[in-house]
Amino acid sequence: MPGEPMLWSGWGDPALARELPEQVRALLRDFLGVRAPDVPAVGLESVRLPTVALPEPLLGALAETVGSAYVLTSHEVRVRHTRGKSTPDLLRMRAGDGSAAPDAVVLPGSHEEVAELLRLCSAERVAVVPFGGGTSVVGGLTASGSGFAGVIALDLGRLDRLRSVDLESHVATFEPGVRAPEAERLLAPYGLTLGHFPQSFEYATLGGFAAARSSGQASAGYGRFDDMVVGLTVATPTGTLDLGRAPKSAAGPDLRQLMLGSEGAFGVITSLRLRVRRAPGERRFEGWRFGTFAEGTAAVRALAQEGPLPAVLRLSDETETMIGLAKPDTIGSGSSGCLLIAGYESPPSSTTEPPSSAPALPASASASTEGASPLTPDQAPTATSARALLSDGTSALDGVSSVGGQAGSGWGSVAARRSGAAAVLARMGGEPLGTEPGEAWERGRFSAPYLRDSLLAAGATVETLETAGFWANLPRLYDAVRLALIGALGSPLVMCHISHVYETGASLYFTVVTAQEGDPVGQWERAKEAVNAAIVEAGGTITHHHGVGRDHRDAYAAELGPVGVSILQAVKARLDPTGILNPGALIPPPTA
Amino acid sequence: MPGEPMLWSGWGDPALARELPEQVRALLRDFLGVRAPDVPAVGLESVRLPTVALPEPLLGALAETVGSAYVLTSHEVRVRHTRGKSTPDLLRMRAGDGSAAPDAVVLPGSHEEVAELLRLCSAERVAVVPFGGGTSVVGGLTASGSGFAGVIALDLGRLDRLRSVDLESHVATFEPGVRAPEAERLLAPYGLTLGHFPQSFEYATLGGFAAARSSGQASAGYGRFDDMVVGLTVATPTGTLDLGRAPKSAAGPDLRQLMLGSEGAFGVITSLRLRVRRAPGERRFEGWRFGTFAEGTAAVRALAQEGPLPAVLRLSDETETMIGLAKPDTIGSGSSGCLLIAGYESPPSSTTEPPSSAPALPASASASTEGASPLTPDQAPTATSARALLSDGTSALDGVSSVGGQAGSGWGSVAARRSGAAAVLARMGGEPLGTEPGEAWERGRFSAPYLRDSLLAAGATVETLETAGFWANLPRLYDAVRLALIGALGSPLVMCHISHVYETGASLYFTVVTAQEGDPVGQWERAKEAVNAAIVEAGGTITHHHGVGRDHRDAYAAELGPVGVSILQAVKARLDPTGILNPGALIPPPTA
Repeated sequence: MPGEPMLWSGWGDPALARELPEQVRALLRDFLGVRAPDVPAVGLESVRLPTVALPEPLLGALAETVGSAYVLTSHEVRVRHTRGKSTPDLLRMRAGDGSAAPDAVVLPGSHEEVAELLRLCSAERVAVVPFGGGTSVVGGLTASGSGFAGVIALDLGRLDRLRSVDLESHVATFEPGVRAPEAERLLAPYGLTLGHFPQSFEYATLGGFAAARSSGQASAGYGRFDDMVVGLTVATPTGTLDLGRAPKSAAGPDLRQLMLGSEGAFGVITSLRLRVRRAPGERRFEGWRFGTFAEGTAAVRALAQEGPLPAVLRLSDETETMIGLAKPDTIGSGSSGCLLIAGYESPPSSTTEPPSSAPALPASASASTEGASPLTPDQAPTATSARALLSDGTSALDGVSSVGGQAGSGWGSVAARRSGAAAVLARMGGEPLGTEPGEAWERGRFSAPYLRDSLLAAGATVETLETAGFWANLPRLYDAVRLALIGALGSPLVMCHISHVYETGASLYFTVVTAQEGDPVGQWERAKEAVNAAIVEAGGTITHHHGVGRDHRDAYAAELGPVGVSILQAVKARLDPTGILNPGALIPPPTA
Repeated sequence: MPGEPMLWSGWGDPALARELPEQVRALLRDFLGVRAPDVPAVGLESVRLPTVALPEPLLGALAETVGSAYVLTSHEVRVRHTRGKSTPDLLRMRAGDGSAAPDAVVLPGSHEEVAELLRLCSAERVAVVPFGGGTSVVGGLTASGSGFAGVIALDLGRLDRLRSVDLESHVATFEPGVRAPEAERLLAPYGLTLGHFPQSFEYATLGGFAAARSSGQASAGYGRFDDMVVGLTVATPTGTLDLGRAPKSAAGPDLRQLMLGSEGAFGVITSLRLRVRRAPGERRFEGWRFGTFAEGTAAVRALAQEGPLPAVLRLSDETETMIGLAKPDTIGSGSSGCLLIAGYESPPSSTTEPPSSAPALPASASASTEGASPLTPDQAPTATSARALLSDGTSALDGVSSVGGQAGSGWGSVAARRSGAAAVLARMGGEPLGTEPGEAWERGRFSAPYLRDSLLAAGATVETLETAGFWANLPRLYDAVRLALIGALGSPLVMCHISHVYETGASLYFTVVTAQEGDPVGQWERAKEAVNAAIVEAGGTITHHHGVGRDHRDAYAAELGPVGVSILQAVKARLDPTGILNPGALIPPPTA
């Protein structure tokens, strides 16, 4: 279950593995020509790892910094910190290719230990890959040890505490290794929520969300994760940055926005001050049908520009609707047109209740209504203690979390907001489908990665990719991505949805399914290269919320241009002069 | 009138100069002991300027780049580009001190000319001070020529066009020298507005708003200016940056947020792509009375955290309410308690009108509904042509502009939003005062700087300063600023209001009035130093929307810490290796 270690060669809890429905098998066989792969996945013990390159004295020095119990070099631990969760990552792991394994996994227990590790590794030229939930899908975790004494994965799993809650300011201070469901469990006793529910929710960490600029399924209501970060502490090899004295400031460039998205290449986030909101009460998910993707896009644009905006807003294109991807329980039995999912929520209580009313606090935690006094370490609730405090034992998935409120305020009942949005959707040509499609989406909202594992095992390559652009450019971007994928893969199934909207534009999220060739990694890498080039050429951004890592790095450099790249290189050279931090990720080397 | 050159020694249009009401004179005399100054202000022709340091060949090279008509060295032009509009700036100018004048004022006509000027000045070590509206109140325009061949003011006044309007994406592309009222006039034929109305509105430019992270009076509805910027083109001595392919992206750090707030120290903004909104229809301003500032603060916090948020929200403290500063027409006849001003607006038409309905386009402009095709230069409307197109000749102040809509959407009528907010305000202890105080505020919203001129002439020093922090820290910040001012100035009048709110915190804006001493500049500089230190010590940011310039630079460095400062220095060294860009502003020199 979530909270336990994830399947090393795939996604999530092995107990939740999904059988492919017969209609999906038929689709793979008849439409895509998928045949079972020749070679089954290997067992964990058969993964081939390189020998540990780090010399013993350095391992000893690392152990001196964090304690010998927290420097791990076992086969299993190294395998579990090898690569992320992109399809090429999984294909390689299933084939037993552990060549990208770190030499050691190091688990610091405090900001000070992180800072000391970075000083040590900088002096000894040890590459450091910060590791949160391990859910990167863009090669964010695959450091090259070339030119270094070795590579360590800096696992932030011990930094898993809620440090303080400022009920007055709606700010909670977390350590970076807190996984998203734990964050919701820790906030629940205060009646608060982050409202951040990306597909990686079950395993990803808050530090990872910040480092990679995550965006969740309720982004229309709660904003992106970078909107939630009001303060950051970052340890770098040359010292500590402590950013965020006010929600917004005119005091120069916003350096929080330079650290958000820095993917471990500038430093390691050791503390996050996050905007929180009162957890929602009433919720409702609904489906609407539009005749075409263009019609549906005009409708979601109307909601984004004129309101009212639901907390969740997702529009599938014709192919995704036909396949039924938005309703994983019944995949393969989709329908015609384009399915739109809208989710609404209202505040936990009537608007006449003062927002300053403090919820009952858990006995082991203290909350500050006067602000900045953090909990002492002894008082800070751990994930375990907070979970025990939830009387009904429900997970965040069952309770607090499911949808977002209106950006900036939970004002208005579900009924009022829903009727306002329904008027817009109907005017724009939508046909209401009631709550069934919305509830089906909500039940399956985190299941797609499990489905991918089953598809990979069945001989299909399935991967997702995404971009964003301004509204007027979306049709061009949509066509460019589809054409690039079809050009590279022959007759793949290409599905798309819009799930993050802004006044000036939106994201496009693609799911591609094709039959595995003899070299499925090479097959996908060629397609990925083509689609990256197409996105850059069509004026989109190379990623809306997956991040850059290594898979998007060259396209990112093209998007940014040489002056932009030189800025990143200058910042990195200043903060990380020996280049130990996640080498190869995000930033092209200065000589490139 | 706005659009004409501003009073060189004060603010705005000399014809709008204000006589001080007798009750204000009495207040100054009886409460503050103000006596008329010994020395009257000098005339423009008597301002003492340094001789032009730039050698003739360099002046010739500048003229070759932009045309000799656009390299100006006359006494009047130099005086008009000397310093900004802080109180020390005005006191110095009134005393005839033009020691900070640039050697020449250069007006480029294109991005390419800006880029070429920067290359030339970098090679020849000529300091460059970008000059938009000239409204800096933090010493943003006062370059030191020390170590340089000379100093030029790079006046962006010729870059004054609306380049394109993307009606579908709600994005307008402007040149940086467009003044805010002109921007509203240029957008009005499209039925659009920026919604950005800072107190500097009448003279400030869009490029300046971006470079200094401006925030307007309707920020609760429209957001800050940095929220409006979706794309930027920046010329630097080492090349051009072109940022913003999507509203939001996970492609690395958001470098737009590194250029916003860079105050001309990294480059010169030559193009801005700005989010625009449909201009509002119905508007309504109201007043409410709260017993104490703490009660009122709790009420604005409730609106910021739970909604509904008015477009304009401003809360005066007890002193500001007593003086009546929020209603400049009747200043000196204030009341007890704390005055809150709330402004509401609704969309221009019923919510059933499609947002994609294109307004009639002016004959000389073309708008793209398909997106990115910019107007050719010949098609681009100039400020002059667009003004002529407005049939009724009204200024933006009379029409389009006065209040903001709800963040992200104009959903909901004035009546609905107002009744929701009124319920919160009443529950939190507010007493409704009807529309009179709101309308009085709205009439006087841009008049405070005119009032300052009259006060300076009468022998009072009046200045404003501001900070921001998280809600829980605001009382500490409020007390710290007041104590520092009282400690430094004896018995000044210190007034405060909150006018920018966020879910997690708010700004505090202070107005200080004291009797001028023999050396009023030195008197204020001592107070400013004390209050800067108090803000840093109390955990606030040194500026919420005035910017850093030179007056906040050292406090900014303390706020940021040495690692943060080193990041700025590294970026500057990369983009501006000879350090010609606005030297001394924003970033402490590396040796400091």
